[in-house]
This record gives sequence, structure tokens and C-alpha cells, in this order.
Amino acid sequence: MKAVVLRQSALTVEDLPELTPGAGQVLARTVACGICGSDLHFLHHGHKMLALGVESGNPSTVDLSKNIVMGHEFCAQLEEIGPDTYTTAKPGDFVVSMPVMLTGTTIGTIGYSNEFIGGYSEKLLLSGPLLLTVPNGLNPEHAACTEPMAVGLHAVNQSGITIGDAAVVHGCGPVGLAVIASLRLKGIESIIASDFSPARRALASTMGATTVVDPRAQAPLDAWLADAGPQAPRQSYAAGSGSGLLQFECVGVPGMINETMKRAPKSSTLTVVGVCMETDSFQPMFGINKELRVNFVLAYTPEEFAATLRHIAEGDIDVAPILTGRVPLDGVAQAFTDLANPELHAKILVVPSL
Amino acid sequence: MKAVVLRQSALTVEDLPELTPGAGQVLARTVACGICGSDLHFLHHGHKMLALGVESGNPSTVDLSKNIVMGHEFCAQLEEIGPDTYTTAKPGDFVVSMPVMLTGTTIGTIGYSNEFIGGYSEKLLLSGPLLLTVPNGLNPEHAACTEPMAVGLHAVNQSGITIGDAAVVHGCGPVGLAVIASLRLKGIESIIASDFSPARRALASTMGATTVVDPRAQAPLDAWLADAGPQAPRQSYAAGSGSGLLQFECVGVPGMINETMKRAPKSSTLTVVGVCMETDSFQPMFGINKELRVNFVLAYTPEEFAATLRHIAEGDIDVAPILTGRVPLDGVAQAFTDLANPELHAKILVVPSL
Repeated sequence: MKAVVLRQSALTVEDLPELTPGAGQVLARTVACGICGSDLHFLHHGHKMLALGVESGNPSTVDLSKNIVMGHEFCAQLEEIGPDTYTTAKPGDFVVSMPVMLTGTTIGTIGYSNEFIGGYSEKLLLSGPLLLTVPNGLNPEHAACTEPMAVGLHAVNQSGITIGDAAVVHGCGPVGLAVIASLRLKGIESIIASDFSPARRALASTMGATTVVDPRAQAPLDAWLADAGPQAPRQSYAAGSGSGLLQFECVGVPGMINETMKRAPKSSTLTVVGVCMETDSFQPMFGINKELRVNFVLAYTPEEFAATLRHIAEGDIDVAPILTGRVPLDGVAQAFTDLANPELHAKILVVPSL
Repeated sequence: MKAVVLRQSALTVEDLPELTPGAGQVLARTVACGICGSDLHFLHHGHKMLALGVESGNPSTVDLSKNIVMGHEFCAQLEEIGPDTYTTAKPGDFVVSMPVMLTGTTIGTIGYSNEFIGGYSEKLLLSGPLLLTVPNGLNPEHAACTEPMAVGLHAVNQSGITIGDAAVVHGCGPVGLAVIASLRLKGIESIIASDFSPARRALASTMGATTVVDPRAQAPLDAWLADAGPQAPRQSYAAGSGSGLLQFECVGVPGMINETMKRAPKSSTLTVVGVCMETDSFQPMFGINKELRVNFVLAYTPEEFAATLRHIAEGDIDVAPILTGRVPLDGVAQAFTDLANPELHAKILVVPSL
């Protein structure tokens, strides 16, 4: 079977041995798999990502000198159920799953692993108990967006935001767009989104932003302040108060956390969703003076993953606008390059059947 | 009247004009006033503190070229009540107050102000409505510790800690000791305190720490991990879960926030109480990988201030051990120097009558 193999910071399409599902596993044919910004990082900065994991007490077993098949945003069609495997899905069903493999003793990662192949491949093995069947009538390519959209739902849930609070979203790449979609779903009426790219700002509006800002023209918090009035800096904007102000950092480059802290109003919350892999600097006094809360978030719970699939299936979240490209396996390397241009693309799907 | 005047980074005892209470104010004789670490910072780095306030949208009106009388941890004896002043206190009563002055249109600061003199002075003006009468039988010098101990209560309240959670307190200066006292008061059974100084570690034990650590000999989180067992890094330690792990950063020097994030277990909370006025650096990935929460806290609410006075009066918090020195007004400059040695001192009280 064909797969896009990552080895020594290069992506090449190779023939890999056919897979056989073991106990607890199913074999599935990849229908579509989104390319994630973390994959772009991992291609060139895998060593650094792994080193930071070790340093913070979360070591990975990945060996970068050996084959890795990335891709953790997949929808697949079930082909074969392994022995002693519990699943509610049947062969022929379209399924999605969190990108993890239950081995009985550990929880392995699908897509950042030497052992478990991700979705940049014609086929992959999944954990039977984790499969969610794609509801009848939902485009499997839309179902492949469950994973990235669940990231947004989790960030919004963890932020503590409630009806009446306002949100400022910095960065309208796939992460920011997922956050905006979940904010809208939660009923947040004031969603200010900021991005340098006109195309991304247009997508932000489509996904639910009520105001979009080019940060070169206006600081995103000024757009909020314009509504909040001159007394704003003296008031408290705690999340969940019904008049809170929450910022979502979805850019992931050094300096953004400090910038959002610097301009934050009192008692407000910053949820860090964008993944900055560089050493960053900041002024603790900005946080202290204003009693800020900084929540770092990652991924989602199984419940949030399942809820996101339902939201997409029921049309509460429309992912069609963010799907800007489809490539075959031998187009993945070029797609990684193309994704650097925010005017061209938001989310590119790898479609092995193309 | 005599006061310690700060002007151009120097402290000198000077004769200032007598004070007259205006509407809403009382005149009081300072009985004792604690020296705060922030005052030490302000003496030499006032410009920087003010600049950071401006940058983060909290500008101060203080002019460092004009007289400032610091001191915001005071207990005073009421002498004279101004016109049209509401207060429940009577002349002769010992009183404490949050170090702010209500002017009717603004809330002024007492102690970091050109207008409102702080407690390094024979007398000071206070806001009548804010006065709390020191309960009968409580040593007024102990009542002067209401302000710094309220900082600890606020930090503990804001952290979200609950019975069953464990706490690691980094730094056992007055801020760390106040945090420890409030953790004990809240019924926290595992309080690990860390400081380089043997004297400070001894004080930490006295105030309620259950384990004390010299961070040169053992990382504070290793002391906690030794109890938590080898599965600890895989588990979630959210505050308020009854098995959470909360860290309190009470040192306030660059690098501490990153160090506590680096070693933090998953989902744990870091409450930043120590005031770091330098640019700091950190790895956002430590926070993201482990979904950490960082709460910056400052000061206290009026309710927490009043509760702290009651706790001290009722013997629930014994401040006697932290009171390591008493100096007259002309001993303040030397006391600022002496406080650099943690083996010698925790809290020095300025006692103008000495």
C-alpha cells in the first residue's frame, strides 16, 4: 500500500507492507485526512518538539530516524475487523476516531509514531472501541474535520466563557476558525477575529465572527474597547461573568502571549490554543497588575470529539468553507509548501484515492 | 510630624506639615507599619514599576521626583474624625484599613502616592468608611500584618484549591509564608514549601508547611512526586479535584515561572503571587503539553481583608513568628538593607514611637 513517509525531514511516497488488524483493531481505507499545522512543524522541527516533550516530563517514544506516516485528522472506511475486537461499526461504514491506539497496556499515538500509521496513507489501523460511525448523509470529507474542529470546542469549553461574554480571537488559521465556530455554537454574540490575511478574515466572518480586524490597521482589543467604552480599563472582565472578555491566542508565534497580556483588561482570561514551539518572553507584571488567567489547552476529550462529529453532521458547524484544497498522496509535499500562503489555503485534505 | 520620605531613590526622615482630616477622612497615629518587598523594589526600580503599569494600561499618577511616603501595611490609633465622615471607629480605637483613600471621585493609593502618606510616618489620613477596628485584646503590631496576610488568603482563594489537593509553595518570604498560613487555615493537608534559607524553611514549618525542601538538595516537585508515586506524570491534577496539585510562585525572579511550568504535572495550576518586574522567558509548550493554568493574582478583596483581621484576632493565623524586627523611623533605611538577608529577617515593623 502507498503512504507518505516522513524520514529525515523529507516526505516521500513509498510502498509499505499491507496491514493486518490485530486484537482490538480494525483495518480501514483512508477516505480523507486533513493536513495540520503541527505536521508542518513536525516535518522540520520534530527534534525540537520531542526535546520539549522530554524536558516537560512527557517523553515520546518516536524515533525520527525511522519511518513515520503522519496524518491525525482522518475519515476512513472500515474494511476488516480484527480478532476479539469490540466495535459498533461494520465493514463498509465510514468512521472517524481520535488519533490514538489502545494497545491494552498503553495509549499509542496515530500519526506521530513509528508504530501506528496515520492518514497520509491508503490504509490504516484503528482501535475498534474508539470508532465513531459517520452519520448517514454526512460527506466523509467533512467528517475528516472532526478532529481539528474538536480542538476549537475544547478550547472554548476550557476557557470558561458564557453567554454575554465577548471573545477576541487572534489568528484565523484552522485553529482560530475552529474556535470561532464553537464560540458561535455556544451563542457568544460578540466574536472579534483578527488576522493579517483578507482571505482568512473572510473565512472568519463565514464561520461566525461578528467583527473582523486587520491587526495592522487596528489592535483587536481596540475593536472591543470601542464597544466597551472609556470605563472599560477600570472594570473587571472575568470569564463566565456574563460581561467577561476572553482572548484566544491561535497564532502560535513568539510575542503573541505577551501582546495579548499587555492589552488585556482586568481579570480577563487568555486561552492559549496556538502552538508556539519557540522560547517566548513576557512581562509577568502585565499578568499581575491585571490578575490575568492564562489557560493553555491541548486537544479534546472523547466526549468533545463525539459532540463535534454530531455538530458537523447536524449542520451546526459547516466545515465546507475551510476546505480549500484536495491532493493525492503524491501532492502532500507540495501541499505542505502551499499551506504557507494564507491567501491560498486554510485546510487541505489528503485524498489517497485521487 | 516626622516621616520617612522617598525622593530620588533615597529614604530620609523629614519633618512634614501636620495633617488635617478632610471630609470622609480620619487622622490616625501610626502604631506599626510593615516593610513590604514591593517597597524594596519601588525604592530602586520605581520608574520601571510605573512604566510597566503604563504599558499594561494601568497608569499611575505618581511622580517620582516629588515626595512619597511609603508604607501600606499599617495599624494606627484613631485621633480625629473629619467632617461628614462615616465610620464605626471612635477616637482612641486601634484601626486597620486597606491602603486606599476614597475621594468620592477616585480611589487613591496610600503609600505609593504623592498625595496620600503611608505608614512610614508618625501620622496618616485614612478613609473613614474603610476602617476596621482592631478587636479587643489583639496586639496592634499583629494587626499590622492584616495586609500582607490577606495577600496569602486571596492567592489561596483564587487558586481554586480544595480539601484533598496538595500545594507546593516556592519561596518562603513574607508572601510565601502568608500563602502557607492560608493553605493551613483552609485545611490543606499536604503543603510542601521550598526556600534556600534554613531560617525561612523553619518559619514555613511554623506557619503550617508539612514538608520543607531546600531546592538545592531536592526539586520541590520531587518531594511531592515521592508521595504521588510513579504513575503521577500520567494523571491529571486539576485544582479543586480533591487530588489536584497546585503550585504557588512566591519568589518573583525571572525563570521561576518557566521552572514551575516545566516540572508541573498535567492539568495542574500555577498561581503567581511573587512579583517579578523583569522580562521573563518561558516555553509555551510546557503549558500546552500539560494543559497548565497560570493565574496571576494581586492584593485581595475587602471581604478577604476583613476576614484576615478576624483570623489573626482569633488566633487562626499566628503572625508572631514572622515578626523578626522593629525599627524607629530613622531605622527604616537600614532595615531595607537588612531585609536582603533572609537568615536575619522575614517581616520588619516600622514603629514610629520607638
